[in-house]
Amino acid sequence: MRYSGDVAPVSGSPAEARQRFRAGLAGPTAAWAPGYVQANLVVLPQDAACDFMLFARRNPKPCPLLDVTDPGVPASSLAPGADLRTDLPAYRVWEHGTCVAETADVTGYWRDDLVAFLIGCSFTFERALTAAGVPVRHVEQGRNVPMYITSDQCRPAGIFSGPLVVSMRPVPAGRVPAATAVTARYPAMHGGPVHAGSPAALGIADLSRPDFGDPVTFHAGDVPVFWACGVTPQVALASARPPFAITHAPGHMFITDVRDEAYAV
Amino acid sequence: MRYSGDVAPVSGSPAEARQRFRAGLAGPTAAWAPGYVQANLVVLPQDAACDFMLFARRNPKPCPLLDVTDPGVPASSLAPGADLRTDLPAYRVWEHGTCVAETADVTGYWRDDLVAFLIGCSFTFERALTAAGVPVRHVEQGRNVPMYITSDQCRPAGIFSGPLVVSMRPVPAGRVPAATAVTARYPAMHGGPVHAGSPAALGIADLSRPDFGDPVTFHAGDVPVFWACGVTPQVALASARPPFAITHAPGHMFITDVRDEAYAV
Repeated sequence: MRYSGDVAPVSGSPAEARQRFRAGLAGPTAAWAPGYVQANLVVLPQDAACDFMLFARRNPKPCPLLDVTDPGVPASSLAPGADLRTDLPAYRVWEHGTCVAETADVTGYWRDDLVAFLIGCSFTFERALTAAGVPVRHVEQGRNVPMYITSDQCRPAGIFSGPLVVSMRPVPAGRVPAATAVTARYPAMHGGPVHAGSPAALGIADLSRPDFGDPVTFHAGDVPVFWACGVTPQVALASARPPFAITHAPGHMFITDVRDEAYAV
Repeated sequence: MRYSGDVAPVSGSPAEARQRFRAGLAGPTAAWAPGYVQANLVVLPQDAACDFMLFARRNPKPCPLLDVTDPGVPASSLAPGADLRTDLPAYRVWEHGTCVAETADVTGYWRDDLVAFLIGCSFTFERALTAAGVPVRHVEQGRNVPMYITSDQCRPAGIFSGPLVVSMRPVPAGRVPAATAVTARYPAMHGGPVHAGSPAALGIADLSRPDFGDPVTFHAGDVPVFWACGVTPQVALASARPPFAITHAPGHMFITDVRDEAYAV
């Protein structure tokens, strides 16, 4: 596979983007097909999938399910004609909680008992924040969003349990209400913040040392605002250690045919 | 068991109502504990439960899930302390799609692999309709709401498939927008109408001959308005014929501790 982080994104249609990934191009999907919903991918054998569906139901803020496929069928109603085994730029293959392969095509790993979950991603509400005049510092600073493991626990379900993971964005104090209102319109993309202000309230000791992603620089008057994060299910997955799983590689999302606005409420 | 349709409802707390049902009282729950959410109950072994959870996810209008329990645990976060095996006034027990028993207590049928689903019920939005000045004809006329099997098909999932079932309420033409707005606030209780006007559009031949419930008399200027109905999962259940299932007996719901307004959006 080619990992081409410096390939220019395609601002064309989701189908064009997926076609290029299917043809072998690999790279992060940020800025590809702007205005269309991108999704996290989790694929599990049917037994573990049953537990995971319940885990997602019980923890809808970090795990907003956009689609669940039939066992063995690598297709989603969110992108008719797409093949979930080839149309993401990069995948990770997991055995018993350990990543055993990173690849651009999981056709060879596919099984009849695999169920795919597509999970909402904050790319959608970040576009909405920008459109509403709320600065998105980590984008301004060319960094990945900082993410933190909190002391809040998810509601467990079967083999899945674990802490809530949050993403943090510094927001000018006066724009916190706007940031809340804008993101609350997207419950399927993690929705409104879970907390604003003191990181200690979430058991976060040091904002400059995120558990995932990059630290981000605050401007004077910014307050930290925390949203439930799609890394939560990945942490639960690593802890549950199901015999087999496939996920997207971080930042290498599934691009759907659905417009961002279709998920606004 | 005692079936006491003429027992006066208790207008006290949900806990008081459940305590009376647990002590053996059986009767429909309409008008009991007003202002609190009542729920349909479907209980399935874990294999079938996995399919049913997906069926409900794919058909949220007729099957709005309020809670899904852990296997073998007859308790719900919607009513801490309640026992789902005893605290409904009446249950039906099913084997391979056939009702084999009707009882006030399913403790003797309980198994470690049973998963319980609590599903929203239109009692909640009927109270909201009345509060908004929209007449509810079947209540005025002392009848059960009329329900119809439509020509619309649900999205199948595993062993579950079948037609959408709708309830119908005659609404004065000028009040249809209000009825729509009020019920749309309760997506967890079937939400806004799926159709208003011609029954033929849903494949319904004759409103005077409902498939379930009672025919209702129209007033001059009333138009038929159709909502997705909680009988839909029961029809899917009868068709899927899982080896074992428990449901509430029609009209004999689970009374939760959650206020109606908690589900308004």
